[in-house]
Amino acid sequence: MSAVMYEGKAKQVFQTENENEVLIRYKDDATAFNGEKKGQIIGKGEINNSITSILFTLLEEKGIKTHFIKKINERDQLCRSVEIVMVEVIVRNIIAGSMAKRVGIEEGTVPPNTIFEICYKNDDFGDPLINDHHAVAMGLATYDELNTIYDMTAKINEIMKAFFDDLGITLVDFKLEFGRTKDGEIILADEISPDTCRLWDKKTGEKLDKDRFRRDLGNIEGAYKEILSRLGGK
Amino acid sequence: MSAVMYEGKAKQVFQTENENEVLIRYKDDATAFNGEKKGQIIGKGEINNSITSILFTLLEEKGIKTHFIKKINERDQLCRSVEIVMVEVIVRNIIAGSMAKRVGIEEGTVPPNTIFEICYKNDDFGDPLINDHHAVAMGLATYDELNTIYDMTAKINEIMKAFFDDLGITLVDFKLEFGRTKDGEIILADEISPDTCRLWDKKTGEKLDKDRFRRDLGNIEGAYKEILSRLGGK
Ligand SMILES: Nc1ncnc2c1ncn2[C@@H]1O[C@H](COP(=O)(O)OP(=O)(O)O)[C@@H](O)[C@H]1O
Ligand SMILES: Nc1ncnc2c1ncn2[C@@H]1O[C@H](COP(=O)(O)OP(=O)(O)O)[C@@H](O)[C@H]1O
Ligand SMILES: [Mg+2]
Ligand SMILES: [Mg+2]
Repeated sequence: MSAVMYEGKAKQVFQTENENEVLIRYKDDATAFNGEKKGQIIGKGEINNSITSILFTLLEEKGIKTHFIKKINERDQLCRSVEIVMVEVIVRNIIAGSMAKRVGIEEGTVPPNTIFEICYKNDDFGDPLINDHHAVAMGLATYDELNTIYDMTAKINEIMKAFFDDLGITLVDFKLEFGRTKDGEIILADEISPDTCRLWDKKTGEKLDKDRFRRDLGNIEGAYKEILSRLGGK
Repeated sequence: MSAVMYEGKAKQVFQTENENEVLIRYKDDATAFNGEKKGQIIGKGEINNSITSILFTLLEEKGIKTHFIKKINERDQLCRSVEIVMVEVIVRNIIAGSMAKRVGIEEGTVPPNTIFEICYKNDDFGDPLINDHHAVAMGLATYDELNTIYDMTAKINEIMKAFFDDLGITLVDFKLEFGRTKDGEIILADEISPDTCRLWDKKTGEKLDKDRFRRDLGNIEGAYKEILSRLGGK
């Protein structure tokens, strides 16, 4: 293993001897509101590495192509190296967070249709909401790539909603990132964890995700551990 | 003519004896930045009434269904009464204004594709950018209605681009509003004027639109008059 290729807010990406593979290291660092709020959640790196590994394995089994190769150790994953498509893809089964504020809908409202959004992945501009025409105009993706991404995202949502539901968890919303392989194939990349999902306990409504950090609700690590344990992780 | 049904920032809408028709009166009032900046542009009401009348007549001739029936006098138009679809539809042939700021693209950049946007028409939330899924979830329109709106908008853009080009004017971007008739048909409503378009002189690049007001460039009325005179109005 060699140099850090890229260090983000939650993970480090290392080159490996194989140019088609990267090692992804999960950190305990937590940020919110576009980096304005910073902290550490002890144990988060290990928990999110485990949760992402379980979910990406599930998605692979269900026919979704992902970057995930294998979990190497507590903090590290081996993944296919991709060129990240610089849009964050957001799925909302229930209205919460930025969308609730943006258009004045009460958090917890169940919309009649699933909401898909894309944001320009760029911290300098606060990851602004964009649409397909913007993404294409900015050279972030082609219309074809976006259609592939939306198709994959809809399938991922169905798989994850059912899976979490069986574990007594409501999948409120989540964020995905996709990448291009060397031969231009679009595959799912990055992570799926309580950092990137809103997960509410089905019975109690308790928030089991990063909103505990964003909104200072306490017991952050406990919530992340609860998700991992419901997923069957240790 | 009877009571004001609705008074907006630029126009008043009056009931008429015919419940399917409204009288629309164009005011001299000008606002920008979601009402933060306020002023009057002497003569604007009359000029915009004339410009909108000319453009809606052109669009009708080219097969676009609109609310426009006829110009009644200097300030007033007779139009079909519609239920306004509460989204503002924006077309961008050249990047300027809010999109330039939003994603950090230099004003004047020509994108490889035409950009269509919808915003939630609601001053309380600053007319935020939304996408089709938001609009449907909020009950603003159905997916079918939005598709009709995008089809009509693309045609309107082609007609208007060519028309303005012949007059030595670059159609940079513009905003449209659509409405539903009593039988649920989607037709073009509201206005098309220098208040709702960015229009640049093809040779000099001079701005001939509301940006003169927004950015304190002076000679606002002159610019509006120049557009009307190129359109063949008095
Ligand atoms: N398979 C992959 N190959 C290359 N980069 C990846 C891969 N998966 C994720 N990344 C990128 O790794 C970076 C680090 O992740 P993270 O710390 O979450 O960053 P960010 O601060 O952008 O959220 C991100 O830019 C992410 O897009
Ligand atoms: N044919 C129509 N029937 C009913 N309302 C209309 C019609 N055309 C436009 N309107 C509405 O008239 C109102 C007044 O216009 P305007 O002053 O531009 O308002 P705003 O402040 O919302 O921009 C707006 O709400 C506009 O949507
Ligand atoms: Mg990230
Ligand atoms: Mg208006």
